[in-house]
Amino acid sequence: MALAIAESERVRGTTSPNPPVGCVILDDAGRAVGFGGTRPAGGAHAEVMALKEAGTKAQGGTAVVTLEPCSHYGRTPPCTEALLEAGIKHVVHAVSDPNPKAAGGASVLRKAGVTVESGVMEREVSTGPLRAWLHYARTGRPHVTWKYAASLDGRIAARDGTSRWISSETSRKEVHDLRAKLDAIVVGTNTVIKDDPALTARDADGMPLARQPLPVVVGMSDLPGGAKLRHTALHLRTHDPDEVLTALAGRGVVEVLLEGGPTLAGAFWRAGRVDRVLAYIAPALLGDGPAAVLDAGVSTITDAVRLTVEDVTMSGPDLRISAVPRT
Amino acid sequence: MALAIAESERVRGTTSPNPPVGCVILDDAGRAVGFGGTRPAGGAHAEVMALKEAGTKAQGGTAVVTLEPCSHYGRTPPCTEALLEAGIKHVVHAVSDPNPKAAGGASVLRKAGVTVESGVMEREVSTGPLRAWLHYARTGRPHVTWKYAASLDGRIAARDGTSRWISSETSRKEVHDLRAKLDAIVVGTNTVIKDDPALTARDADGMPLARQPLPVVVGMSDLPGGAKLRHTALHLRTHDPDEVLTALAGRGVVEVLLEGGPTLAGAFWRAGRVDRVLAYIAPALLGDGPAAVLDAGVSTITDAVRLTVEDVTMSGPDLRISAVPRT
Ligand SMILES: NC(=O)c1ccc[n+]([C@@H]2O[C@H](COP(=O)([O-])OP(=O)(O)OC[C@H]3O[C@@H](n4cnc5c(N)ncnc54)[C@H](OP(=O)(O)O)[C@@H]3O)[C@@H](O)[C@H]2O)c1
Ligand SMILES: NC(=O)c1ccc[n+]([C@@H]2O[C@H](COP(=O)([O-])OP(=O)(O)OC[C@H]3O[C@@H](n4cnc5c(N)ncnc54)[C@H](OP(=O)(O)O)[C@@H]3O)[C@@H](O)[C@H]2O)c1
Repeated sequence: MALAIAESERVRGTTSPNPPVGCVILDDAGRAVGFGGTRPAGGAHAEVMALKEAGTKAQGGTAVVTLEPCSHYGRTPPCTEALLEAGIKHVVHAVSDPNPKAAGGASVLRKAGVTVESGVMEREVSTGPLRAWLHYARTGRPHVTWKYAASLDGRIAARDGTSRWISSETSRKEVHDLRAKLDAIVVGTNTVIKDDPALTARDADGMPLARQPLPVVVGMSDLPGGAKLRHTALHLRTHDPDEVLTALAGRGVVEVLLEGGPTLAGAFWRAGRVDRVLAYIAPALLGDGPAAVLDAGVSTITDAVRLTVEDVTMSGPDLRISAVPRT
Repeated sequence: MALAIAESERVRGTTSPNPPVGCVILDDAGRAVGFGGTRPAGGAHAEVMALKEAGTKAQGGTAVVTLEPCSHYGRTPPCTEALLEAGIKHVVHAVSDPNPKAAGGASVLRKAGVTVESGVMEREVSTGPLRAWLHYARTGRPHVTWKYAASLDGRIAARDGTSRWISSETSRKEVHDLRAKLDAIVVGTNTVIKDDPALTARDADGMPLARQPLPVVVGMSDLPGGAKLRHTALHLRTHDPDEVLTALAGRGVVEVLLEGGPTLAGAFWRAGRVDRVLAYIAPALLGDGPAAVLDAGVSTITDAVRLTVEDVTMSGPDLRISAVPRT
C-alpha cells in the first residue's frame, strides 16, 4: 500500500476533478509487477495503468489500490471490469468510495469471486493524497488549505511592511513543491497590489515547474497595470468565500491553497471555509507588524477557533505545523 | 550520568546561588551505591551527600557528577578532599567549572592519582539543570526565560481581553511545575492590575507546592489594594531590565521566569536580556487581541530577532517550543 500511496502522490494535482489514485499489481507470488496512477481527467484510471504494465503477470494476482475500484461507466469503462478481465483474484484498498455513483466496486468484485479487503492504511490515504478529493466528493466544495508564513509572535511582516523573507529557503521551496500539487492558489487584491506575486510553482533555480496551479485573485479592485497576475489570474470580483469556491468547483478545482493575506484569510475563517492550516513559523520575533489573520470573527476567548495539530515538523530552521479545525 | 542528571533536576530551584549538582557513586564493581544532590546554600554539596550514602562502598569506586568537583574552601570544604578521603579512584563529570575560584578540581584529583573524564553528556547538563547557573557564573546576571502562552496567530488574549484559558490544563500544570524549579517570577504592574495573579506554584488541586519562587513586579504604579501580590511580591519601581536583574542577583536569584505581559517582555528583548523563550502555542486562532510581545525594537524584517529552536514537544494539545536567541 505504501507503494500505491507513492503512486497517488506522484499524480496528485494532475487528475482533478478525478481522484489521484495509485495502484500496484502483485503477481500470484506477491511480486510487484505493475504500477499506475490516475491519468489526467478523461484518461485511464490507476488500475488500468498498473494492469497495462503487469500484462499477463496480473493473472491470479492482487491489486493494491488507494481507493475502492469504480464500477460505473464514466468517461472510461469501470475498473472492476478491467480487474476481472485481467484475472485479479484479490483486491486491497485503503478508502471506500464516498461517491454513490462509483461505490459498490467492492461488492461487484466479491460477487465475481474476488476477495476484497478494505481500510488498509486508510488514515494515511484519507489525510494524505486523497484528502482534498474526499472532501470535495462529500461536500461538493474544493478543499481549502490556508498557508501562511509568520514569526513566532504571529507577524507576517515587520512594522514597515517588509516580509522578505520571514521563512527559510527550505520552507519556500516546500511551498513551491506544494503549489505544483494542487489546482488553484487564491489571494486577495491587496496582496497583488503590495507584493506583485507570480504565484507560480518554481524550482530552486526559479524555473517554473511542469504543473502550474490556477492563480486566483479575490476582491473588487482592479489589478495594477503592470501586475504579473494581470493576464494570468482568474479575478473574482466578490467578497464571499462561497462564491469563490463555487466558481472554482465549476472549473474542476478540487484543492485550493489560500495564500492570504490576512483580510481574505479572515473572511474564509468567518465563513467556516478553511479545512486545514499549514503554518510555517519562523523562529523569529518581530514585536510589531500585521498579524497572520485579521478578524476571524472571534471576540472572546470561549469563541476561539480551536484546531487539532496533525503534524509538526522542522522545515529547515522553521516549524511547519499542519492543523485542522476541531469539529 | 543520566542518574546524576536526575539528581541535579531533583534539587533544581533549591540551591541558588549554588549550582544544582547531582552525583552518583559507583562501587568498584560499577554498582550505584550512593546518590546525592546539592543541599540548599550553606549545606553539603552533591558529592558529599552521595558519599555519605555510599559509606565504605565508595572505596575504589567512581563518582559520576554533573559539574566538576570543587577544590576550594567556601562555606563547605572542597569536594575533591571528600572524594579522595573516601577512596574514589575515578571521576566522570559533565561540565567543567566556569568559576575560576572553584575550577581546578580535575587537576587536583589527577595529581592525587584519580582518573578524571570530563564532557560526558555535557550538552544535556549545560542546556538542562545547570543552564541557568552556568549563565549566571559567566555573566553575573540571572538567566531569564521568557514564557508566554499564545494562540497560533500570536495572540495572548481575545479582542475583549479574555485569556482564560488559551493554553491547555497540561500546559498550565507544566508551568506550575517549572515555577517550583526556579528562583523568581517577574511580571509588569499591568499584569497585576489586569489579572491579579498569585504567581505561586500549585499542584493539580490548586494546593501550593513546597518550593515557591519569589514573585517580582516591575513598574512605577502602586499595586491595587486588594492584589494577591501586594504583600508577597518584591516590587521594583524601575523600567530598566538591568536594574531588575541586578536587584535579583543581589538576592541570590540565578533563574528568572519572565511571565509578561507584552510590554515588559518587549523591554527585556530590547535590552537583550532574554536568554530563552518558552512558548506554549495553543492550536487556536483569535484573529484579534493583544500580541505576545510589544515592540521588540524591530522595525524592518532584516532586524528581526532571530532564534534557534532547541526543542518542540506537544504539551497536551499545545505546542511547547523552546528557543534561544541566535548569537
Ligand atoms: N506571510 C504570508 O504568508 C503572507 C501571505 C499573503 C500576503 N501577505 C501580506 O499581506 C499583506 C496584504 O494583506 P491584506 O489583508 O490587505 O491582503 P489580502 O487579504 O490579500 O487582500 C485584501 C483585499 O481582499 C479583498 N477582499 C476579498 N474578500 C474580502 C472580504 N470578505 N472582506 C474584505 N475584503 C475582501 C478586498 O479588496 P477589494 O477592495 O479589492 O475588494 C481587500 O482589500 C501584504 O503586505 C502581503 O505581504 C503575507
Ligand atoms: N498569555 C500570557 O502568557 C500572558 C502573560 C502575562 C500577561 N498577559 C496579559 O498581558 C496583559 C497586560 O499586558 P501589559 O503589557 O500591559 O502588561 P505588563 O507588561 O505586565 O505591564 C506593563 C507595565 O509594566 C511597567 N513597565 C515596566 N518596565 C517597563 C518598560 N521598560 N517600558 C514600559 N513599561 C514598563 C509599566 O507600568 P508602570 O506605569 O507602572 O511603570 C507598564 O505599564 C494582561 O491582560 C495579561 O492578561 C498574558
